[in-house]
Formats: sequence, structure tokens, C-alpha cells
Amino acid sequence: MTALAPGLLRRLGEVFGGERLLTDPADCLPYGYDNSKRVALPQAVVFAQTHEEVQALVAACNEFRSVLVTRGRGTNTTGATVPIHGGIVLSLERMNRILRLSPGDRLIECEAGALNGDVQAEAAKHGLFWAPDPTSAGYSTVGGNLACCAGGPRAVKYGTARDNVLGLRAVTGAGVSLKTGCTTTKGVVGYDLTRLLVGSEGTLAVITEATLKLLPQPQARRMLRACYADVSAAASAVSRIMGQPETPCALELMDGEAVRLAEEYQRTGVPAGTGALLLVEVDGSPESLEAAVAAVSAAAAGPGLVELKAAATAAEAEALWACRKVLSPSLRKIAPKKVNEDVAVPVTRIPELIGGLRELSRRHAIRIVNFGHAGNGNIHVNLLADPEDPAQMRAITACLHDVFRLVLSLEGTLSGEHGVGIEKRDYVGWEIAADTLETMRALKRTLDPLGLLNPGKCLPDASAGR
Amino acid sequence: MTALAPGLLRRLGEVFGGERLLTDPADCLPYGYDNSKRVALPQAVVFAQTHEEVQALVAACNEFRSVLVTRGRGTNTTGATVPIHGGIVLSLERMNRILRLSPGDRLIECEAGALNGDVQAEAAKHGLFWAPDPTSAGYSTVGGNLACCAGGPRAVKYGTARDNVLGLRAVTGAGVSLKTGCTTTKGVVGYDLTRLLVGSEGTLAVITEATLKLLPQPQARRMLRACYADVSAAASAVSRIMGQPETPCALELMDGEAVRLAEEYQRTGVPAGTGALLLVEVDGSPESLEAAVAAVSAAAAGPGLVELKAAATAAEAEALWACRKVLSPSLRKIAPKKVNEDVAVPVTRIPELIGGLRELSRRHAIRIVNFGHAGNGNIHVNLLADPEDPAQMRAITACLHDVFRLVLSLEGTLSGEHGVGIEKRDYVGWEIAADTLETMRALKRTLDPLGLLNPGKCLPDASAGR
Repeated sequence: MTALAPGLLRRLGEVFGGERLLTDPADCLPYGYDNSKRVALPQAVVFAQTHEEVQALVAACNEFRSVLVTRGRGTNTTGATVPIHGGIVLSLERMNRILRLSPGDRLIECEAGALNGDVQAEAAKHGLFWAPDPTSAGYSTVGGNLACCAGGPRAVKYGTARDNVLGLRAVTGAGVSLKTGCTTTKGVVGYDLTRLLVGSEGTLAVITEATLKLLPQPQARRMLRACYADVSAAASAVSRIMGQPETPCALELMDGEAVRLAEEYQRTGVPAGTGALLLVEVDGSPESLEAAVAAVSAAAAGPGLVELKAAATAAEAEALWACRKVLSPSLRKIAPKKVNEDVAVPVTRIPELIGGLRELSRRHAIRIVNFGHAGNGNIHVNLLADPEDPAQMRAITACLHDVFRLVLSLEGTLSGEHGVGIEKRDYVGWEIAADTLETMRALKRTLDPLGLLNPGKCLPDASAGR
Repeated sequence: MTALAPGLLRRLGEVFGGERLLTDPADCLPYGYDNSKRVALPQAVVFAQTHEEVQALVAACNEFRSVLVTRGRGTNTTGATVPIHGGIVLSLERMNRILRLSPGDRLIECEAGALNGDVQAEAAKHGLFWAPDPTSAGYSTVGGNLACCAGGPRAVKYGTARDNVLGLRAVTGAGVSLKTGCTTTKGVVGYDLTRLLVGSEGTLAVITEATLKLLPQPQARRMLRACYADVSAAASAVSRIMGQPETPCALELMDGEAVRLAEEYQRTGVPAGTGALLLVEVDGSPESLEAAVAAVSAAAAGPGLVELKAAATAAEAEALWACRKVLSPSLRKIAPKKVNEDVAVPVTRIPELIGGLRELSRRHAIRIVNFGHAGNGNIHVNLLADPEDPAQMRAITACLHDVFRLVLSLEGTLSGEHGVGIEKRDYVGWEIAADTLETMRALKRTLDPLGLLNPGKCLPDASAGR
């Protein structure tokens, strides 16, 4: 890694002072990681505190042709914030202010570095919440959630990041200051730049501030666990549940392998003969919950149902969730190497997906464990392997390719919520047609003509074949 | 208007045959209108039946540098489909097939020329609906609804077109065939081209097919009418209603002028002393409705409430809606010239908006009648004038400008759902900052380099000042 041009370093010093500029590799290294476990060393790290500082930074990057990688808290799993081409890492962790909360307008304005958890805490004071609830919600930033279009379990009822944002402030790669969207839930003046930036993983613009749409917190919740003889029976139930009006606020699936692993790790009371299970949560007014539970229960009932339990108390709900909660530690215990995909298929194709995955598991002799947000068809497919075994590591790649082909043959998408980053970049061309991809690249060139923002992420290079 | 180049005409004949190509001005004229009452004569009208025909058409337009204006059924009110620069009008009325409905996946695929009403009818067979419900729903097309990002009363609960679309097929102005989005409600691979095209009024690409997100129909509905002493009291109630969890599926406001006009036209039982009223509808399971009515009623109660009535039967509901239903004919009767704006402001700013409008009405001696989708802050501001009176016609323009300034000072937007078209094009720069607007123009140049698609709409020319 070459050092920064002296002129650029001087400029950074002018904008950020000594205290908010890191250049010592030992200081910079922690900002070269994210939750993908990948790492690369940036040449400098800066901590912006205002939109105007970000503008000055992007101008300097353009002048000196420096790469710029923006990060929140680096919780993404795809390498999207790893500075693989060096350059400057812009950390927004100090742009974490909540600027305004207007309960009557159901909106909150914050800086991009504000934590999702802080937004939730502030909104909760007024009986409101922001829908995106990735696992990392407590310590991931709003800007990161928007850049990756974060989802989470309750997206099945309340939508993902793109459905819950009203407007943005941002600086494009060309250095243009943008104010997108509006402060109302309806607005049709000009092009929808807001959603063009959401999910673009920092490759088009640096999001500096956001106006988020808040929703009123449901007053009450009820939790159900439905155990099935096999995963096809569970998957069919998912279709039935999504086909009726009482949309659950969580509809999570665990396949047979997942249930078995979890139960091996710690018994949580799943009945014998369970080959898959659904965890379902409904919310609403206390008066409406009984009806919702009845409707979901009726939809959950069907061939292969082994047991259906509805929690009457919070403690009972926790007991029903326990099987899911112990799954992650159980996975970590048995498999140090785990490839965790987050494909999505139309809900009615889940049985074919799970059946196909079982077949691929046999063919490649790779253990596959599936669970996830079944209401969106968003299944976390976990390929488990021993990193010490070269044959298995080769098999896992071949298996992964077959998984992707299977998903696409079922009209699915390669990523429901984690995004592309580096991890899936080579496969984007499998899903998106060449012409459409070329149009996306043209938009990238328009907003970031020198290709400075987060290069090597999100879209494959034009030379990459299908 | 010059005639089409002979080469282009020949090409159109090859693609569309004689039967699906109009060139006689008398035949073309009906395709030069829309609901803005503006008209312009195209040089030719073609009726595509497939995506591939649209591709061939756009290729021909590029080769011969011909303008192309796409239309559904011309129900928009902004002139967005009027071919003011001549060229070819592409009517999608014969691309009206429903391609697939998958109830378990809550999605429908259709061609862009399919009527919203036909989609609703097909979805209803499976207990589903598509959220956008513009007044024109019965006879407007899905493609038009998407191009304008249509809303309607129930958007307050279910969102607008952009919130209820999963993916598109389209052809850009450059002639590139696009397949955007996916078939699942979660998907984060590549940039969000879907929402870039939604609301772009046919200036970036021709939408040919759409995959729409369907929702389960609520099983029951309840209707309430809340009458207030004045509009400030009603507007405050809107804020309170939107601040609690039972989001209504319609929350319509009529100000004092609107109530007075409607009652003059036909008495519908509005109590004396009503200076504004709210029409509120809640939906859900029959079991939950009582609680929802109670919650909304509690929020509706407050200073200035004159009367609150909840309908017990469908006939009673109709009686409560009657005051709103007679408003349109009453407006037509008293004012042949009516400028109908559809501004939106944050809900808490509605009292300031209505107060400011009252002041502008006095200052300009222009009668202003306000009603609309108050839950989104989307108020239809109607300026009434006598077209025979030149002084009043001048006053109306000055008044309109003040209305726009007022809306923007309240952090609002100039159009909540009707869009820009020609009507509001000169004012877009009042709302959107110059830099952001220039970025939108750059996107336009990227997707439509020759500027062939629907020129003179949506974005103001670069030369137009603020």
C-alpha cells in the first residue's frame, strides 16, 4: 500500500484536524475489517462530523483520485466496507446525532452514523419504531442499514429499509450534494434518488443524513410455535399463512437439520418427530390478538402438523423462541467454517428450495442447515465444512454454485438482505441480465465518474463474464 | 407538425403492420389528449403488443431521432402524456394481459397496459388487492399508475405504487431492455432500478411489464365521520389519529369551504356548526374492528369536536361518505375553471397550511376549497376562478405561486400523487435544489441519451432558473 499523496494528506489535515485523522497503520487497521472477517489496510481513516466535511472530503478525493470507502460500524457480512483498494476510510461513527423526531409526523431525522438502536430508543419514547431490525440493530448504523437495505424478521409485515425511508442527504462520488425525497409519505416530484441510493452499498454516494418513516408500536404480541413432520409440510404452511390477511410480524422457519442441531446443543422442548418448525409472531391491539392467533393457527394447521403451541405469557414465548436462540451457538460449536447465504425465493417455492438443498447436500457431501425469514422466502442457507479439509473446501464452492443455480431456477434472488459486497459480486451476473447490469454500471459512472466510491463492491466489473 | 421520415414510417409499418399504426391526424388526435385537457397532435400512434415490439420501436426512434411518448389511458391530470413535441405516441392499451397471479406469493404479473381495475378484479378472486387506488382506478393502467407513482386514499395504510411493486420489464430511451427487481419482497442484488423508473413519467424508460405486490383483503371495514368547529381542530385530530397504532385505511379531510359547498349542493346531514370534517375508515378482522373504532374515536375526540358518528351498517357508511361524494359535482357547478393542486405537508403542519391558504384566499380574492388525503398530509387545494375574468385569471397564477411557497415553507412537496407532467414542471426547481436536479438530469441523459422519451415533462430544462 503506497502512502497518501502529500497534498491529499495536507488537505485531510485541514478538514479533520489531527484528532480526527488516522494514518498510522496500527490505528487504521481496525477500520479495515468488517463482519465478513476480511481485512485490508486503508491509507487513512477520517471521522467526519458534518455533511459539509463529507463534501470537502469527496472533493479532495476527486482532486487527488483517491478511493473512498464509507463505513458505519462494519457489521455487514459481505466485505462491503473492507477497503480492498486502499484509499481513505470515512467513518461516520461520530455523525451519530438524532436531529429531530416528530411523533405526529411519524418521522425521525438523524445523521447516518446514528445507531439503529439509538433511533429505536428515541422512537420508543413516543410509542414508535423504525421497521428495519437486522440482528445487528443494537450496534449497526442507520447509514449502514440504508446502504445495505437492511431487513430482519419483522420485514415480513413492516418492510425493509427502502420501504421505511422518506429522504436523504448525501454526497455523490462526483462531489454533488444531494437532498432527496421529502418529509411526507407521498411525494412524486423528480426521480426517486432516495431508493437508488438505498442498497447501493456506498458505491454511488455517501449518505450523510436520513429522514426515516416511523410506525406506531403494536400494543401487544403473541407467539406461536408450529412443529411439522418435515420441511415440505412446514413450507406449505408458510404459503397458507401468507395467503390470509393476518400477516405475522415474524414468520421464521427452521429445517430438520437446524432443529436437530439446536436440540443436540440444548433441549428446548421440541416434540419428537419434528422435522421442521415455524416460529410465528403476531402483533396488534390486545383486542385483535385472539382473532389473529386463531387465523394464523387455522392456516398453520394442515398435513404433517405435529404440534402447535401458542404462548400465553412472555416466559412461554421465550421458551418457544429458545430453539431458534440456541441455533447460532450450536452452529458455531460444530462448524468453525460456515458459509451463510441469505437467498430468497417466492414463498410457494420454498418446498422446492429445501428439497433441492437436501439433494445438493447429499451430492456434495456438505452439511446444509436452513433457517430464516420464511414469510419473505428469505432463507439463510448455511453450508458447514471443515476448513482443515481441502477436499471439503473445494466441495463447498461447487455446492454453493449449485445452490445459487437452484435459487435462480426457482425465480429467487441471491441475497434477500445481506447484500453483495465482495462476497457475492462474482455471482451478480448470474441473476441480473447483462443489459440491465450495464445500465447499472452506467448509473455508477454518472454518479461517480472516477469510480472512487467503494470500488470492487456491489457490481461485477464489466469484463466479468456470466 | 412535420410528417414522419419515410424510413421511420416504413419501419413502423414493418413492426406494427397497417392495423396497429395510425398516421391520419383525425385518428391520431384522440391520443394527443389526457385529463389535463391539454392536447397536441402526434405524427403517428402505434399499438404495441409485446416487449419486443417496444424494443424495436425504441430502436427505430433512436435511429431516426424521433420523440416517443408512451401512454396508458391518459387519465393523468398533468399533461404527462400529451405529445407536446410531436413524434410517436405509443399506446399500451393492447398490452393488457394479466400474465400470472400467484396467490401464495402475493404477486401478480401483468403487462403495462392492464387496467388497475382488471388487476383488482383478478386479485379479488383470491382475496387479494393491489394497494394503489387512484380515482381513475377502474380505467387507468398499471403502467400509468407506476409511471406516475399513483396513490389514493388507502395509501395512508398500504402505501403508493412504489411501495407495492416488486419488479419491472422496461426499455430505456437508449433502447436497452431491462429486467429489474425480483419476485420476492426482499431483494438487494444490484441497484434499485425499479423505483428509479416508478414516478419518472415515461422519461427514462418505457415500462412494458410489472410484477406487483398484492396484499390480503381486509375482511371488514368501519366508517366514521368526525365534524369539527374549524379546520385547525380537524387538523389537530389528524395528527392525533396518525400518532396511534390503529392506522386508518382512509383519513380524508374536508375544510369549511368544502363542507359548505357540498351542503349547498345537497344536504347530507352534516350538523350545524361544522367548520371542517374528517372521514375515517378502519379495516381488519371483524374481531379487531371494535377496538380500532374505539382507538380512532378516542384520538378523534378533542377540542372543537362537534359530532362523531360511526356507521353501523353499509348504508350508514354511505350516508357518512355522502358529503364527500357530492363535493366534486358541486365544485364543477360553481366553478368551470378549477386549479386542482395536490400538495403534501407533514401531518402536523396541516393547520398552518390551511390557515395560510385562508389568508392567501383573502389576499388574492380567490376562493380556495381544500380536501384530500389528510393522513398523508396530501391536501387537494382547489383554486376556483371565472375564466371569463382576466383579472381573476391573473390573480389565480399569483395565488398559486404563493400556495407553492407556503407549502415549501412548511417542508412540504408540490405533488403528493398527481405528478409533474407539464403542469408543475416550471416549479420543480422551487422544491428540488439545483445540484440534486442536475443529478436527475444526468440520470436522464444516461438512460435516454438522445432525449427522445417524453421530452418537456417531469424535469425542467437546465436553463430554467429557480
